[in-house]
Amino acid sequence: MKAVILLSGGMDSATLIGHCIDNDIKPYCLNINYGQRHNREIKSAEKLAKYYNISLKKLDLSPLKILLKGSALTDKIDVPEGHYTQENMKLTVVPNRNAILLSIAVGYAISIKADFVMLGAHAGDHDIYPDCREEFLDPFETAILRGNYHQVKIITPFLKETKVEILQHGIKYGTPYGLTWTCYKGGKKACGKCGSCNERLEAIEQNRIKDPLEYENE
Amino acid sequence: MKAVILLSGGMDSATLIGHCIDNDIKPYCLNINYGQRHNREIKSAEKLAKYYNISLKKLDLSPLKILLKGSALTDKIDVPEGHYTQENMKLTVVPNRNAILLSIAVGYAISIKADFVMLGAHAGDHDIYPDCREEFLDPFETAILRGNYHQVKIITPFLKETKVEILQHGIKYGTPYGLTWTCYKGGKKACGKCGSCNERLEAIEQNRIKDPLEYENE
Repeated sequence: MKAVILLSGGMDSATLIGHCIDNDIKPYCLNINYGQRHNREIKSAEKLAKYYNISLKKLDLSPLKILLKGSALTDKIDVPEGHYTQENMKLTVVPNRNAILLSIAVGYAISIKADFVMLGAHAGDHDIYPDCREEFLDPFETAILRGNYHQVKIITPFLKETKVEILQHGIKYGTPYGLTWTCYKGGKKACGKCGSCNERLEAIEQNRIKDPLEYENE
Repeated sequence: MKAVILLSGGMDSATLIGHCIDNDIKPYCLNINYGQRHNREIKSAEKLAKYYNISLKKLDLSPLKILLKGSALTDKIDVPEGHYTQENMKLTVVPNRNAILLSIAVGYAISIKADFVMLGAHAGDHDIYPDCREEFLDPFETAILRGNYHQVKIITPFLKETKVEILQHGIKYGTPYGLTWTCYKGGKKACGKCGSCNERLEAIEQNRIKDPLEYENE
């Protein structure tokens, strides 16, 4: 079996690599630059693919940025600090992001006759990101299956799990979290304050491990 | 009301502009270069937007070509000649194309708070292109509506119509078909032999008008 992993370079998609290996699925990673501020993730995706010695396609679609307005991740808007459940975190929603990324990943999966596309969406995303919910993913998969001759399923192994639980899997798989990047601000060190950093730090703390990343104001 | 039109530069999407104007919908055109061989279409999209004095965003996503393999439109495969109902015309299927194009158009539509995304899919596409069928478009729209805060509907006014009927609308709207481009081969003149040219020529003939385009071997 073959799977295309949408590898952002963050913790969740990095853990998917271990999930594939553990389930005897050959991973083909795809990293898409959609013009996000935190494009430091891309370096992390490269390091992860090199670490595992697996295929990585990098796709520069940064011109997309001119179309996807109104998000702090692609536009000139400050990245909000706090937790994912706060209303202002909606500023980090990128218009229709997962439909765009998944559609391209499915196109690639068809080209290489892969069986699955894997996405690292998880329970912590549901409050803010409607395109990480089952109610979006289910009809999207139906459309994809009906819209193509070669059949590709959308797999989200962590959809009902918290970041804490994902990290538990990753610790078991030996996922090299020091190579991942989480912070939305994309500075030299992680900010430790944005919703994404907060979620990472909590999961790290609850798993009683040390984060190999460096943070500002440490 | 505002609509994003996926304007390829072909006859069907050109006719959508007239449809919008006729229905008091303000059109915002989006042309996406996905690495197709017949990128001469793009010039047609520009001419159409200029003719109507309407907004056109051009998005160069030609790097997508490296991922979307196995199609005569993006890969090193000869464009088949003949009619759309022939099995070899399946070579012109681009993996997951409409999901990719529609997803990006919806992202743009959300950014400009548009109400609709319009696609020129029609009955003649159904045999060969599963992503032009209602059974794909319906769940895709459901996913899009559930996956985003701002609601964008997918509109396909010509889905149950033939090319002949689309042309009837266009003649009524005064669509400038001399500015459109149809041929898949993307040469200096239209080839007159590919499935796309054949369909155009039949529609032109059945509407008893003269095609303003030049063809090879005329």
